[in-house]
Amino acid sequence: MLPTFMTPPSFLGCQRTSPDGLCVAGIPFDLGTTNRPGARFAPQAVRLASRMLVDGDNPSGWRDPLQFGFADVGDFRIALGEIPGSLALIETQAAALPHLAAIGGDHTVTLPLLRALAKRTGPLGLVHFDAHVDTWPDNFGQVFAHGSAFYHAIEEGLVDPARMIQIGIRSPLQRKTWDWTVGQGVTIVSAEDVHLRGPIAVAELIRQTVGSGAVYLSFDIDALDPAFAPGTGTPEIGGLATWQAMAILRRLGGLAFAGMDVVEVCPPYDSAEITALAAATVLWQYLCLVG
Amino acid sequence: MLPTFMTPPSFLGCQRTSPDGLCVAGIPFDLGTTNRPGARFAPQAVRLASRMLVDGDNPSGWRDPLQFGFADVGDFRIALGEIPGSLALIETQAAALPHLAAIGGDHTVTLPLLRALAKRTGPLGLVHFDAHVDTWPDNFGQVFAHGSAFYHAIEEGLVDPARMIQIGIRSPLQRKTWDWTVGQGVTIVSAEDVHLRGPIAVAELIRQTVGSGAVYLSFDIDALDPAFAPGTGTPEIGGLATWQAMAILRRLGGLAFAGMDVVEVCPPYDSAEITALAAATVLWQYLCLVG
Amino acid sequence: MLPTFMTPPSFLGCQRTSPDGLCVAGIPFDLGTTNRPGARFAPQAVRLASRMLVDGDNPSGWRDPLQFGFADVGDFRIALGEIPGSLALIETQAAALPHLAAIGGDHTVTLPLLRALAKRTGPLGLVHFDAHVDTWPDNFGQVFAHGSAFYHAIEEGLVDPARMIQIGIRSPLQRKTWDWTVGQGVTIVSAEDVHLRGPIAVAELIRQTVGSGAVYLSFDIDALDPAFAPGTGTPEIGGLATWQAMAILRRLGGLAFAGMDVVEVCPPYDSAEITALAAATVLWQYLCLVG
Amino acid sequence: MLPTFMTPPSFLGCQRTSPDGLCVAGIPFDLGTTNRPGARFAPQAVRLASRMLVDGDNPSGWRDPLQFGFADVGDFRIALGEIPGSLALIETQAAALPHLAAIGGDHTVTLPLLRALAKRTGPLGLVHFDAHVDTWPDNFGQVFAHGSAFYHAIEEGLVDPARMIQIGIRSPLQRKTWDWTVGQGVTIVSAEDVHLRGPIAVAELIRQTVGSGAVYLSFDIDALDPAFAPGTGTPEIGGLATWQAMAILRRLGGLAFAGMDVVEVCPPYDSAEITALAAATVLWQYLCLVG
Amino acid sequence: MLPTFMTPPSFLGCQRTSPDGLCVAGIPFDLGTTNRPGARFAPQAVRLASRMLVDGDNPSGWRDPLQFGFADVGDFRIALGEIPGSLALIETQAAALPHLAAIGGDHTVTLPLLRALAKRTGPLGLVHFDAHVDTWPDNFGQVFAHGSAFYHAIEEGLVDPARMIQIGIRSPLQRKTWDWTVGQGVTIVSAEDVHLRGPIAVAELIRQTVGSGAVYLSFDIDALDPAFAPGTGTPEIGGLATWQAMAILRRLGGLAFAGMDVVEVCPPYDSAEITALAAATVLWQYLCLVG
Amino acid sequence: MLPTFMTPPSFLGCQRTSPDGLCVAGIPFDLGTTNRPGARFAPQAVRLASRMLVDGDNPSGWRDPLQFGFADVGDFRIALGEIPGSLALIETQAAALPHLAAIGGDHTVTLPLLRALAKRTGPLGLVHFDAHVDTWPDNFGQVFAHGSAFYHAIEEGLVDPARMIQIGIRSPLQRKTWDWTVGQGVTIVSAEDVHLRGPIAVAELIRQTVGSGAVYLSFDIDALDPAFAPGTGTPEIGGLATWQAMAILRRLGGLAFAGMDVVEVCPPYDSAEITALAAATVLWQYLCLVG
Repeated sequence: MLPTFMTPPSFLGCQRTSPDGLCVAGIPFDLGTTNRPGARFAPQAVRLASRMLVDGDNPSGWRDPLQFGFADVGDFRIALGEIPGSLALIETQAAALPHLAAIGGDHTVTLPLLRALAKRTGPLGLVHFDAHVDTWPDNFGQVFAHGSAFYHAIEEGLVDPARMIQIGIRSPLQRKTWDWTVGQGVTIVSAEDVHLRGPIAVAELIRQTVGSGAVYLSFDIDALDPAFAPGTGTPEIGGLATWQAMAILRRLGGLAFAGMDVVEVCPPYDSAEITALAAATVLWQYLCLVG
Repeated sequence: MLPTFMTPPSFLGCQRTSPDGLCVAGIPFDLGTTNRPGARFAPQAVRLASRMLVDGDNPSGWRDPLQFGFADVGDFRIALGEIPGSLALIETQAAALPHLAAIGGDHTVTLPLLRALAKRTGPLGLVHFDAHVDTWPDNFGQVFAHGSAFYHAIEEGLVDPARMIQIGIRSPLQRKTWDWTVGQGVTIVSAEDVHLRGPIAVAELIRQTVGSGAVYLSFDIDALDPAFAPGTGTPEIGGLATWQAMAILRRLGGLAFAGMDVVEVCPPYDSAEITALAAATVLWQYLCLVG
Repeated sequence: MLPTFMTPPSFLGCQRTSPDGLCVAGIPFDLGTTNRPGARFAPQAVRLASRMLVDGDNPSGWRDPLQFGFADVGDFRIALGEIPGSLALIETQAAALPHLAAIGGDHTVTLPLLRALAKRTGPLGLVHFDAHVDTWPDNFGQVFAHGSAFYHAIEEGLVDPARMIQIGIRSPLQRKTWDWTVGQGVTIVSAEDVHLRGPIAVAELIRQTVGSGAVYLSFDIDALDPAFAPGTGTPEIGGLATWQAMAILRRLGGLAFAGMDVVEVCPPYDSAEITALAAATVLWQYLCLVG
Repeated sequence: MLPTFMTPPSFLGCQRTSPDGLCVAGIPFDLGTTNRPGARFAPQAVRLASRMLVDGDNPSGWRDPLQFGFADVGDFRIALGEIPGSLALIETQAAALPHLAAIGGDHTVTLPLLRALAKRTGPLGLVHFDAHVDTWPDNFGQVFAHGSAFYHAIEEGLVDPARMIQIGIRSPLQRKTWDWTVGQGVTIVSAEDVHLRGPIAVAELIRQTVGSGAVYLSFDIDALDPAFAPGTGTPEIGGLATWQAMAILRRLGGLAFAGMDVVEVCPPYDSAEITALAAATVLWQYLCLVG
Repeated sequence: MLPTFMTPPSFLGCQRTSPDGLCVAGIPFDLGTTNRPGARFAPQAVRLASRMLVDGDNPSGWRDPLQFGFADVGDFRIALGEIPGSLALIETQAAALPHLAAIGGDHTVTLPLLRALAKRTGPLGLVHFDAHVDTWPDNFGQVFAHGSAFYHAIEEGLVDPARMIQIGIRSPLQRKTWDWTVGQGVTIVSAEDVHLRGPIAVAELIRQTVGSGAVYLSFDIDALDPAFAPGTGTPEIGGLATWQAMAILRRLGGLAFAGMDVVEVCPPYDSAEITALAAATVLWQYLCLVG
Repeated sequence: MLPTFMTPPSFLGCQRTSPDGLCVAGIPFDLGTTNRPGARFAPQAVRLASRMLVDGDNPSGWRDPLQFGFADVGDFRIALGEIPGSLALIETQAAALPHLAAIGGDHTVTLPLLRALAKRTGPLGLVHFDAHVDTWPDNFGQVFAHGSAFYHAIEEGLVDPARMIQIGIRSPLQRKTWDWTVGQGVTIVSAEDVHLRGPIAVAELIRQTVGSGAVYLSFDIDALDPAFAPGTGTPEIGGLATWQAMAILRRLGGLAFAGMDVVEVCPPYDSAEITALAAATVLWQYLCLVG
């Protein structure tokens, strides 16, 4: 056993890299961001931060991903400076993996990940943590970028809006965007709702919403308050505490998770690695739920 | 519509500058601080941070200040290196504006703002978020500085102590200062009170305290915990989360607000702009309440 | 009275240095850390941060340590680059002080402090705030380091496990370590427990656990969430807010405290001094409880 | 005259915005970077840093741009997330300005600026400060990005290689890239050459190389050493000191400058604004040369 | 001997405090700055940085201030928020010390220090390192602030302009200010002059200029380039390297130094303490010259 | 070819790991530092920074280590919290490698590296870049730590003092330490010497001193000025510029190098990775010299 600071730079220091079973991969793509770029450095930062999580089981369930097994298959290739080319590459690489837990990258990457996955599963239920609904039809003119991933996912039938729930929403948005989203059948839980109702009630609502079908977890780190996750590209105040997010996630055992991503970690704006550590812990918890 | 990162450097990228109606102005003054200076850079930082709030309505009420209209009239002039001269200049410039939402500066600036306003309104009700009571008669010997703004405001009859409420108080202070403040009729809600009673109860208490008369909002960013607002001059731990402050503010609709300030943002100590963003969001919420 | 920024660099600017009565001392030792070093700079940083606490009484109880008296006796000597030599030096120096409130240093230092104290008091009750149980028998092969302080304290009979309570626990750990700890009789309150049950209930549980015998407070700053205490060596998300920790501590008046430490503040990773300020406030609150 | 910290956020606080004569514009584009993004924030950062340069004449020549006149026309529009669309927009906007001094953005932007300008002037002489030759035919597969601007400029006949000089070159590169560049007739002055020969000799060499025809200045801030310009996307050690760059620039009076840019300032990686200030000073010196 | 990181927080860890002979004092005053405040924290930061200089002799002359003796008398009192009151307090306190080496504070403090000293010595020779001439008659309207210290010193006859030399000058300034300064007889050595002529020639020029009479050293840290001293309030690029400043200072032995200050260190903008360390080393070298 | 930001986290992204031929290894050890710890994170930081050096040949000699071949064998194991145990482990691991270029760690690690190497080569010539002579017999009481590596190396006969040269020396030190070092036959070139004589003369002096026998390069990053290398544990101002160090190293081709290390990079104090990049470039240059 190596001291924390000597752990190799894969996720949890994992030495397994073969792309079968449960896989972790990085997607160093941030061309879709509308404000602060830098999420391209998230895969590396999240892996380094995961060293704090190596030494033992997750006490909620006494499970250790290094014991039950997963692989860190490295980073996806992307096309430098090009959104469409990168989305195509991401989809192809994701399609080759049986169960993917991805470290973004900005939220644009969720669209090709869902495209790859829904081909196998049909329309997915979605547990979506975020400050933003990300159902804008475009992003200041750009059709495919980080604010429109779920607009396209719904339009393309990749997710089932009736089994889709958004948690932590609080950004400014046009009423018509809200109305369209709710009109599609999406359940929205604002950040204030989480604070006032508590994580146990929210976890229960998630379970009711997504039901027993295949479900995807997309965790935008800006669902967390910037106090807990300063290293992100489009922060909004009033967000979730990490304990709330973790208390919710821990109570999602038994859902039929088919994949996940944690996105929008932007290391150049992080402080003492706390955002990267939050993302690493979310991913670690997911592995413990599904492994 | 421009991407977030291209928004011009006025508040919300606002292009209107004519000083009638609802006005935003900066007051780059920090000579009254007793610890870390730097609030002179807050107007610029808060305006830049406000770019995150441009793209849409405030979902609590579906209002957008850019739609209903306000002006960013730029920064007030101050006298370099001089407290009395600066206070006089601030008062004069404030008096020329019909409804001012000011970005400080340290908390000293609230005194001339109240002097200018109370001439028109008479003694004001006051909603005062802060870690400190700011009712010390002096500041380590300096009569007019950031810890004595409300001592003078009460002594000069600018505010009505019976309609004055302080939220978030938690700093060390002499018992006689506390007793004097309460003795004047001021209602004090400690930070622990907010945590234990919750923002809905606090909002109700504020409404009861300030009643239906003209009321002023003074938001010292150090009411927030340093985790949420590290960029401030005199931090105290144990403060409010941003969600709590926002949950309170959102519930103050219908009060007869006649002016406001958000003060004590100190950018040299900020991290990833989170303090500036908190201040910008407070100001944006105020505009949505009164606009 | 000097302005905050001119306060001398002792704890609270205290001028008294004679080692009788209640004493504050620094222990600049960080060789026992398993991840990020730097706690050697904590005594200096915590003293500087304590300047925010000089100007007045603690409003919870209206007490001011500068009024009722304590001494800042400076820093303990340690042996450069050597754990065993340093532990021996720390124990000797601690033994010479009647009532010590120590600023670590990493958590290894608690072991010699307890060795020195238990010789006088017998097995101590223990109020232990931490993200980690610190009852590992070794630390990646190193017997005496920051993760094994309480294993040895229990094994050496320095503390009474039945009167020992850990608050804020949430790190990964092996089930056998948890089982051993609980099997010894230790009460563990996870961070999620604190969030769900609230600080008043936790304070009550502490009082019940430690009873009326001599008790020691060991406050590892990583009990706090990294949002509130980024400047630490082995952060874990999901931790306590400072208001919760303070609300608990304030309710521990009347316990028979015989000593305390606040450890694991790591200034190179701090932001705007907020971690150092949290540690200073914990220590200040302790002085107010026992002074 | 306003204190430095109150200067409005245009270049030198300039109030003139009409696009005739000498113009400053920002180009917030960074999609072409092959490593650290963030140059989209450079226009804003360089303008803020320029406040240090407002109060007086440039002592080398006793000229003040605010006295002889220029305009800050704001930022160019770009296409979010799209290189080709952005390059087209940049070229169009540049073509509308008679004499442009641009604040990038990454070095990709120089290509459309040269396309717009060369239509009016024919092939330009080029004074090119950089750590990299930027004559790669592509950038990890991307044809138009920050490492290929001058490959295309030469291929498209926008510059006259015989009148082109590169100063500060020192990055790793393939010998064939070097050979191609020199083979085109370009003069390369390595960073070590500058250190060993001194700025006066280098200035003379520049004058000899570019001659009396129309000439363009492209200043990549990474020509400077990272000690002087840490805030950049692709740093290389061993670069120029700011005094050397300025000593060279000051000695280029009388050249037929037709336009310039300063690029690759990356504010998220800057420290105390020193990189932004270096860029602002380069631009200020250019204005003094040509105004 | 204590390890570097345990050195007490006085200058060089000096334990002597009696105000006779050679004295070091801090002056935490920054109300006279025209841009970034924070120099109030310089005395503390410079003392902490001086720990790197404790372990041995200055190899240029084999002298150790701790061996030949000096006192650290602590910080001067100032009047919070008030320039005139503070200047009066500074003058009084300086007058009580036989030979003062002061750690500013902004450059305003040099004026009262010269007032106190010149009463004893008559008009002083002056060795003045700075990016700015500081001979403006006022500072954006403020008569006594950091840009006018030497205007008043000359006007009040505290210094002899014919024996006054400025080294490192490079900021923008009005030609009339330059002409006035030179017209008084002051010798100006620009930063470029230092770079082109070298420190040995500059040291010789200083010796010739100040002659054998009483001389004062005022070292504004912004004489250094911001790469070497980022932590300052009004940086200008193109400045001196630390090796140049030190090479000059080392060659000033035998001058009749009667006092000195090092000013304008602004810790909130420093990086890894390098600016504070530069200031500490300048002060240490001065002590070695005169001790 | 991957974009710079996607390069894998080994040195230069090297995929070869077999421990034959030329090897790079990290030594995450920092228990021997007398001031700021953190060098344990240097191997990781230097590898990440090396990504800037992947894309091409070293233009000084047109060589690319990835083309002629080397291995990155990962990090050495160390004993947590223990100097003697760690030194033994380092020596054993070094002995197993034919030609090692090591990334420290603090300077203590050079001693076991020399012990391992000298067994094969006999007493080595030494090219030693440093701000400190590191020939103190102990370190504040600790015999084996970063300030005594070369005292022991000389005493143990691992190096031949007559073939040993130190470049960049400038720290305070006792005259007896200097005298002992010179008395052993060591050649010392102070930092000021390098500035005044230039790198070409220094390179020539090195060649003359070390001659044609086996020689070791030990590069303490604090030989560089803190402006160029802020991320180090014991900085001293007045040091070398990176261009000077590189200009010297480039001129050492043909020496019989048998091993090297670059030490004392301390990432928690670095800014924008510039120190790590300097260390990576030194190592890259070494590989080009010997590969």
